[in-house]
Amino acid sequence: MAEKRAKVRLHVAAALGEAQSVPLSRDQAHYLFSVMRLGPGDRVALFNGHDGEWQAEVIEAGKRAGVLRCLSQSAPQMNPPDLWLLFAPIKKARTDFIVEKAAEMGVARILPVQTRHTNSERIRLDRLQAHAVEAAEQCGGTYVPPVLPMRPLERVLDEWPADRRLMFCDETLVGATARLKAAQAGAWAVLIGPEGGFSDGERARLRSMEQAVAVSLGPRILRADTAAVAALTMWQLTLGDWA
Amino acid sequence: MAEKRAKVRLHVAAALGEAQSVPLSRDQAHYLFSVMRLGPGDRVALFNGHDGEWQAEVIEAGKRAGVLRCLSQSAPQMNPPDLWLLFAPIKKARTDFIVEKAAEMGVARILPVQTRHTNSERIRLDRLQAHAVEAAEQCGGTYVPPVLPMRPLERVLDEWPADRRLMFCDETLVGATARLKAAQAGAWAVLIGPEGGFSDGERARLRSMEQAVAVSLGPRILRADTAAVAALTMWQLTLGDWA
Repeated sequence: MAEKRAKVRLHVAAALGEAQSVPLSRDQAHYLFSVMRLGPGDRVALFNGHDGEWQAEVIEAGKRAGVLRCLSQSAPQMNPPDLWLLFAPIKKARTDFIVEKAAEMGVARILPVQTRHTNSERIRLDRLQAHAVEAAEQCGGTYVPPVLPMRPLERVLDEWPADRRLMFCDETLVGATARLKAAQAGAWAVLIGPEGGFSDGERARLRSMEQAVAVSLGPRILRADTAAVAALTMWQLTLGDWA
Repeated sequence: MAEKRAKVRLHVAAALGEAQSVPLSRDQAHYLFSVMRLGPGDRVALFNGHDGEWQAEVIEAGKRAGVLRCLSQSAPQMNPPDLWLLFAPIKKARTDFIVEKAAEMGVARILPVQTRHTNSERIRLDRLQAHAVEAAEQCGGTYVPPVLPMRPLERVLDEWPADRRLMFCDETLVGATARLKAAQAGAWAVLIGPEGGFSDGERARLRSMEQAVAVSLGPRILRADTAAVAALTMWQLTLGDWA
């Protein structure tokens, strides 16, 4: 039945398992039946963030509701390493982009933080979470990193777990990836500063933290969204699941 | 005179040197004098891709023309490694993004290529080149990679230089960065496939090339724009100027 394999992937809240029924929300029914023009008998791939990927069949298709039924698991659950991404929100499009890229690159949790030089006072959490879901739907992932509410960086560092290492990008450094290579895998976070860079006080505080490791992202100045992908690549290659 | 240091960076065609006059195009005059509201005596940082960065002073400011005069060099010319980026254009916004990111990450030349599964038949070269210029202006770079006209990948590989290595991302591989680490720096290219992946024929041909090195970008499927930044990071960290 290869020809019936699902082309649409959908993130759902319901539990997934053999013969499990999955009710659709109004938006999901609209997307599947009006936008994608699916109908009874068509296949959809489902994931919920913990039960892997399942092939499901459309049982009922309405304008505002619908029901799918799980057939069989098509991929096991794959969770990312225990890596958090902390970043200072910037312009809307680039903030959306950072969240999308973090979901693709494999982070476990996304924490927007307010720094001295952060431009953005507010974020739309629901919108950012939707970007993370869409990235997982598009890229075949089975895990969606939760996006947490924005908090001041200072408060986050006050409560920083003793056993979680923190990689941050320091533009004033040269060639400091050696320290990352010497480090151990485990609980980590990557912190991307705002466009204006960290304040002197923030940089001094980060440098003084036992858990922190400063790295350099090369001799050119990178925009924050580029820096996020580059830093996550560096971490994944050195300590993550790309090795 | 730190308070007069230029906030605006501008890429120009003219030669730059002490007391050199720099005529402005109509668009540049509009940007500096109408949009940025600069006037005689104000400072602008200039670069042309080969003479480094110069601080210049506004001498004449008109609506459709203007003249600057170079004062002193504020940064030496910095060229990227001899690295080409080949990529298959995708949706407009993501193609723009790849060009912007390539300029930020430090590539010497950008070559759009048409593959079996490339969606885009055409690209707007002037628009893409403008994105590369803007990325260099924003990110403090002094080099702008030229964007070449799109050509079929097959033709490009037919004429591939014997002494230029080619790193390509093969989704079917696992953990193959070791081969990159064993390679030598020098003339290189990074090839990013289209959203649909390479065709079987393209992959077989790439694998058979002596100059080619296949690498894996981890266990998740990345969008082409993410893959471009991740692959350039991998190359820059291993063989480029980030080490």
